[in-house]
Amino acid sequence: MNGAESLIQTLVNGGVNVCFTNPGTSEMAFVAAVDRVPGMRTVLGLFEGVCTGAADGYARMTGTPACTLLHLGPGLGNGIANLHNARRAHSPLINIVGEHASWHLKYDAPLTSDIESIARGVSGWIRRSTSAASVPQDGAEAIVAAMQPPGQVATIIFPGDCMWNESSAPMRPLPLPQPAPVDAVTVDRIAELLRRGERVTIYIGHVALSKRGMVLAARIGAATGAKLLSDRFTARIQRGAGVPEIERIAYPIPQALKQLEGTQHLVLAGAKAPVGFFGYPNLPSELWPADCQIHTLATLEQDVLGALEALAEAVNAPHELAAVAYAKPEMPTGALTLDTIWASVAAHLPEGAVFADESVTSGRMADPLLAHAPQHDLLPVTGGSIGQGLPVAVGAAIACPGRKIINPESDGSAMYTIQSLWTMAREQLDVTTIMFNNRAYRILQGEMKSVGMTVAGPKADAMLRIDQPTLDFVQLAQGMGVPASRATTLDEFNAAMVRAMQSQGPKLIEVIV
Amino acid sequence: MNGAESLIQTLVNGGVNVCFTNPGTSEMAFVAAVDRVPGMRTVLGLFEGVCTGAADGYARMTGTPACTLLHLGPGLGNGIANLHNARRAHSPLINIVGEHASWHLKYDAPLTSDIESIARGVSGWIRRSTSAASVPQDGAEAIVAAMQPPGQVATIIFPGDCMWNESSAPMRPLPLPQPAPVDAVTVDRIAELLRRGERVTIYIGHVALSKRGMVLAARIGAATGAKLLSDRFTARIQRGAGVPEIERIAYPIPQALKQLEGTQHLVLAGAKAPVGFFGYPNLPSELWPADCQIHTLATLEQDVLGALEALAEAVNAPHELAAVAYAKPEMPTGALTLDTIWASVAAHLPEGAVFADESVTSGRMADPLLAHAPQHDLLPVTGGSIGQGLPVAVGAAIACPGRKIINPESDGSAMYTIQSLWTMAREQLDVTTIMFNNRAYRILQGEMKSVGMTVAGPKADAMLRIDQPTLDFVQLAQGMGVPASRATTLDEFNAAMVRAMQSQGPKLIEVIV
Repeated sequence: MNGAESLIQTLVNGGVNVCFTNPGTSEMAFVAAVDRVPGMRTVLGLFEGVCTGAADGYARMTGTPACTLLHLGPGLGNGIANLHNARRAHSPLINIVGEHASWHLKYDAPLTSDIESIARGVSGWIRRSTSAASVPQDGAEAIVAAMQPPGQVATIIFPGDCMWNESSAPMRPLPLPQPAPVDAVTVDRIAELLRRGERVTIYIGHVALSKRGMVLAARIGAATGAKLLSDRFTARIQRGAGVPEIERIAYPIPQALKQLEGTQHLVLAGAKAPVGFFGYPNLPSELWPADCQIHTLATLEQDVLGALEALAEAVNAPHELAAVAYAKPEMPTGALTLDTIWASVAAHLPEGAVFADESVTSGRMADPLLAHAPQHDLLPVTGGSIGQGLPVAVGAAIACPGRKIINPESDGSAMYTIQSLWTMAREQLDVTTIMFNNRAYRILQGEMKSVGMTVAGPKADAMLRIDQPTLDFVQLAQGMGVPASRATTLDEFNAAMVRAMQSQGPKLIEVIV
Repeated sequence: MNGAESLIQTLVNGGVNVCFTNPGTSEMAFVAAVDRVPGMRTVLGLFEGVCTGAADGYARMTGTPACTLLHLGPGLGNGIANLHNARRAHSPLINIVGEHASWHLKYDAPLTSDIESIARGVSGWIRRSTSAASVPQDGAEAIVAAMQPPGQVATIIFPGDCMWNESSAPMRPLPLPQPAPVDAVTVDRIAELLRRGERVTIYIGHVALSKRGMVLAARIGAATGAKLLSDRFTARIQRGAGVPEIERIAYPIPQALKQLEGTQHLVLAGAKAPVGFFGYPNLPSELWPADCQIHTLATLEQDVLGALEALAEAVNAPHELAAVAYAKPEMPTGALTLDTIWASVAAHLPEGAVFADESVTSGRMADPLLAHAPQHDLLPVTGGSIGQGLPVAVGAAIACPGRKIINPESDGSAMYTIQSLWTMAREQLDVTTIMFNNRAYRILQGEMKSVGMTVAGPKADAMLRIDQPTLDFVQLAQGMGVPASRATTLDEFNAAMVRAMQSQGPKLIEVIV
């Protein structure tokens, strides 16, 4: 068994059985090995950002790592933006990065690069394999590293000879690390605080945004009068009928400051204290009031759900809770606007859909419209590097066959990883992309004002607009094998949604907004 | 004047007057400033790899740096692959990377990233601006750093407040570093060697592949009988009628070994000793014979042309040289094959064209067909990270208005930076992309065998093929505003070439091969 074969068997033994690949010469032994070792599904991307974003989406839905297969430093470089997002999502993920044969490195051949330096900023764990014999151990440890709570990116660099030389036997899975429990003293201290009658906001994130976590938070809120607020840039939020509705913190700093106004105590559960996405002149970075005290119930690394459970018990939270009822959303009529588009999405939504959302400014009105829709998962933007939505949709679709993946996407963001559409077509993934075409980096037109630059001239204007020429997403999608249509009226959009929800396979609906 | 304005004026003072941009919030002050400070042309890319590759192409044609404007670590990350190629091309280039406002960094907001770590592997020089007052100095030093012979990538990281706060006056250009001269002892030693009558190969690269350098090399060869061989993965090669034809070293190792077989002395001029692009089992990394001695006439950092001039004098090289004659290439007939396509390109070639070449396996037969065509420039693949051709064509077109840019491109490579087509359309660049659609990573099908993996199964096969679905480059190009046509016969290709060469503006010709 060569290194590549033993690595793949070790990964499959440990439950890592999907590989998002964009290989080159140094990875050919791995490519050949996937036919010799059963159990690893390979999904080709035409660009590495598709692969890393897909692995992120897969991890958000399964809680376990997929692996990527990338070609040396530049291949990893192309994957960095979505690895940044995966890191902010705390997604467990394993990068397998090919490298020159060990004896060839000293020659500084054209593709030689400092892989570790590129990997460092996004990886919680980096390993360079030193021999074919050590490959299985490296693979087994990479799984443990990726699953380090709350989850992280693990990167292994494999010189070609480590892959093609004779290796040792595959490893059985190593024990996985568990999140540290929260001690009773901390729970009691927070319970005591909640009983005092002061103004408390419980700020929850990550696993606390599962249905179980939000039910616990809502029960604690009902018992104590604490306000509940959720992280916005988080891996996954369960939402819709049957799940308590918890307000998300706003992106614009003035709105976020309002949401936390008057808070005397901020209790964190699976989230860091909220800060501005950017620093602006004349706006604070800290979103909590100056006299507010911050308390940590559970860090992201700890057992957040266990801590919420203990806190609910300690405050005698009611077990019955008025859950959000399903209210069949009304079918919108009238003009095609962002509001009617989202209302239409809500009205057509099947049970158990997954939103890989990168609608940015085109999605700001969506939350209330979807709160009473059938239960679904929302995979929000995390690290803020645009180009996340399409690849995350790919990964979610691979992770969840049988569930409808909806990818509200914005034109500017889509173009960073537009190659994702081809993978959707090849794998016939059940993804409906709703492409909001507003012909601008609309968010930047707002940000320009926020940084105090109120008078923009023609050159600045041109840098924030992506018309001249306008992008035709119907042609782009069809050019990559994805059936597509354009909606310029609400009737056309409704009809396209019906078609997309009632059939399987990839679709793109371009909406001109 | 704020930091952004003073920076732009400093850059313009130093001759840096093109900026390939993909900005975000942290760069809004820069974006606003380009309208207030005259002289900086801004060219928007929809993906950062377009910007960095375009800056590379620009530098290869002008010898001076353009700048890029990139959004924090992930934006730089998206640009890494083509910065790797630019580094291997020794292209002078300045990255302007935005960063959070300095006071905001400690909060580890979602877009916070280790920018230096991402920049390190590709940058010869990195600076983090520490105050608005120091910005002009940082800009002026970046130009000097980029122009450090033979040229390199310089990266400056600008926190938002350094851009929008009041700054100091713009700087005048600092003196530029010059390549170190080669001492007379070295020239005499090499001249003496050439006179001995032993088998010498002069291996030339980089600036020696200018017409002047190749004429000098050819004169030295004519006087001494030395064999001439050129680097393959180099920034720019002048070629065609009036330029001596110098054989390029082959990519496949067995062929390259043959080219150097019997060489007793290898003399390097502007090139490192040739090594294999990859390390393979059972093939050497060093391409020269074991008993061959290596001599350096001039390193890349030295005055290579001056050294060749001195050597030509020392060996009494003839001043008259039988240059390559222009031989009007015959118009091909018959089937549409790689040979007839390249013959057609040669037959239709205007004087002074620039090839931004990423045809990979589809271009292996091109060299002899183009050797007698009208004089042109060839910008080859350098670092081997695919996705270079389209962006380099963008940069070359910005650098050389009035010259026809031809971009022989391969389907697999094109998809990494396909967004380049939109920039070609927006700027109405005179680029003709010839898209060789062979529906495969053809090179990897060969590489699979070279690493000894002769039996590939269906999964491996699927990872090397990019059919299912096939890409429709006519739709992709039209979706981004570039007029496109498909050629399935030689007549169709000839007709498309006539149209493309006789009109201005971007075109894409897809050839099904």
